[in-house]
Amino acid sequence: MPMDSKKKDRPSGGVGIVEKRFFTFADPPNELELESGERLGPITLAYETYGELNADRSNAILIFHALSGDSHCAGLYTPEDPKPGWWDVMVGPGKGVDTDRFFVICANVIGGCMGSTGPSSIDPKTKKPYGLSFPVISIRDMVAAQHRLIDHLEIDVLHGVIGGSMGGMQALQWTLDYPDRAKSAALLATTARLSPQGIAFDQVGRQAIITDADFNGGDYYDTRPPERGLAVARMIGHITYLSDEAMHEKFGRRLRKKDGGYAYNFDVEFEVESYLEHQGVSFNRRFDANSYLYITKAINYFNPGASHATLTEAFRGVTSKFLVVSFTSDWLYPSYQSKEMARALMAAGAPVSFLELDTPHGHDSFLLENDELSGIVRNFFANV
Amino acid sequence: MPMDSKKKDRPSGGVGIVEKRFFTFADPPNELELESGERLGPITLAYETYGELNADRSNAILIFHALSGDSHCAGLYTPEDPKPGWWDVMVGPGKGVDTDRFFVICANVIGGCMGSTGPSSIDPKTKKPYGLSFPVISIRDMVAAQHRLIDHLEIDVLHGVIGGSMGGMQALQWTLDYPDRAKSAALLATTARLSPQGIAFDQVGRQAIITDADFNGGDYYDTRPPERGLAVARMIGHITYLSDEAMHEKFGRRLRKKDGGYAYNFDVEFEVESYLEHQGVSFNRRFDANSYLYITKAINYFNPGASHATLTEAFRGVTSKFLVVSFTSDWLYPSYQSKEMARALMAAGAPVSFLELDTPHGHDSFLLENDELSGIVRNFFANV
Repeated sequence: MPMDSKKKDRPSGGVGIVEKRFFTFADPPNELELESGERLGPITLAYETYGELNADRSNAILIFHALSGDSHCAGLYTPEDPKPGWWDVMVGPGKGVDTDRFFVICANVIGGCMGSTGPSSIDPKTKKPYGLSFPVISIRDMVAAQHRLIDHLEIDVLHGVIGGSMGGMQALQWTLDYPDRAKSAALLATTARLSPQGIAFDQVGRQAIITDADFNGGDYYDTRPPERGLAVARMIGHITYLSDEAMHEKFGRRLRKKDGGYAYNFDVEFEVESYLEHQGVSFNRRFDANSYLYITKAINYFNPGASHATLTEAFRGVTSKFLVVSFTSDWLYPSYQSKEMARALMAAGAPVSFLELDTPHGHDSFLLENDELSGIVRNFFANV
Repeated sequence: MPMDSKKKDRPSGGVGIVEKRFFTFADPPNELELESGERLGPITLAYETYGELNADRSNAILIFHALSGDSHCAGLYTPEDPKPGWWDVMVGPGKGVDTDRFFVICANVIGGCMGSTGPSSIDPKTKKPYGLSFPVISIRDMVAAQHRLIDHLEIDVLHGVIGGSMGGMQALQWTLDYPDRAKSAALLATTARLSPQGIAFDQVGRQAIITDADFNGGDYYDTRPPERGLAVARMIGHITYLSDEAMHEKFGRRLRKKDGGYAYNFDVEFEVESYLEHQGVSFNRRFDANSYLYITKAINYFNPGASHATLTEAFRGVTSKFLVVSFTSDWLYPSYQSKEMARALMAAGAPVSFLELDTPHGHDSFLLENDELSGIVRNFFANV
């Protein structure tokens, strides 16, 4: 059992220094069969673990990340690392996902670009990056790959699965596809199917990337990547992750230059423009444009109710205990969708706690420090 | 007095066949001084008129258009014209702006590309299109140019001004700058200052245009225009003009292909994607990317309260009677902003009727056929 990320020290209350590990499977001819009917293999998953697996291997929690996340949800890679993992506020000793009690696993999704197999990976058949020859993957495919990781870690039943946004879609999908392999599932700021408005925003982002002159049909790894398109996609995303109210608070109509008047040109001028520019530029340093296409497509496709008469029918057979949390100001994954999902789970016979939290931060609320949310998650996993 | 658009016939209840006319002024050295301090001249305004000016020239209503509008708000250019003007549902005999009673004027804004002087116009100094050498213009500048048109038409006092969205900003600005020249002002789906979220969406659209490889610093009139960037900008816009609810109704998660399964590629697939693609393509046939930059910038700058302690202070001195209408599902120009504007106008001593209409169509609500809205506007102008 790899206990690689066992802590040497724990600076600032976190899980301390952690390490990214890799698990490779689905070697040909035993490729993973995808929902599309295509086959993918070999597959590598980048993952991290925090905390200790107990003797009967019953205290594991699997965390699923959202669109731009990765396996690094807590801790630091080096003592000098300026930034902890993306969910360090939630994951650690005594936190919502308590690493003093639980063995926590987080893997980068397939289709991603943070160590797991995705369109920027080398296709062993051609010895070149897949690019758009990478098969279109689904939320179910992401989960199937992580199911193989859980097998590899010799964990029969997870204490719980948890995720926000696309991570919540994966957590829900896990309970549908592997109903006897998770005692509980926490679904935060998520939905059983994205709204047409959400699909529309994703599609505009994809179009910005695909129509960038540098995109070159997805074959840009030896040339210049479509940075302008990816920046535009990210800027659109960031508007949808915040709320009108949060933007009034964070930026208002303030100008970057403090001398009062307008610049009367098309340079970055309002604070909110400066924020968006920064998000676009910094995203290009860490994310692959093709992965953006594949992952948003998986989000748009997700619809477990589609093959059933009702969402409740789709949920028949779930055995997990559920926590569903939505946020009042989240207009990308709005509360009414979380409620619909929670109602259908209840109608399917599952125990469900549904909470709508009053926060001004929009969809990002699930990622931000929030003692109430952490307490809710901690209590949920403590009482499974 | 040009009565050029006097009707020969009136097919389908509209104002009939209309004609675009042009008015040129501000010839050097008498250029229009702009809010930025720069000067612009000569200036041509494209405009249309419908209905008859009465003997004492007191029955004129000036309509201001929104971002992508033009002077053609009602009627047809030819009997075969497949589409009437953009506000034909509101403007015509017996309609909200009743051409049987009123002489109606609508001009394309400066900065535009539908006949009025804008960045695609020839700069007389260089004999080439202005491009980005066109001065940045403001809502106040747009209104100042139309003020000259009203002088030219020898109309001392307008019966009313009316506009939705950016048109409402112009109508409000008119009442501030020319308080004795409009008896009434109808402000629909508008605000006294755009929210940071609105600025953010506009900025992403501008960035999509400016970073398009074909943009070439705005100098693309002899080459290939930045069609991909303008399409992305328009797609973003269209998402913000609709509502979550309207998109559920119009598109849901329906696929364009009716055979059930997903395509597993990145082609247009959902109905909502097809709608956006159509909007992007068709916008390129009629709109100039530079005009998109200039007009959105004017919208973002608009903030008559900025130079005063309060919005109420900015509104001191208005003498018009106001109608303010907002729409429950409009999240781009949300009701709370209309209310704030209406309250400030009342506090400044103006007579104000404020109505929030319950419609599912988002910001587009002001443009769509709506008997209740037409009735409200008709009654408002009848009782001035």
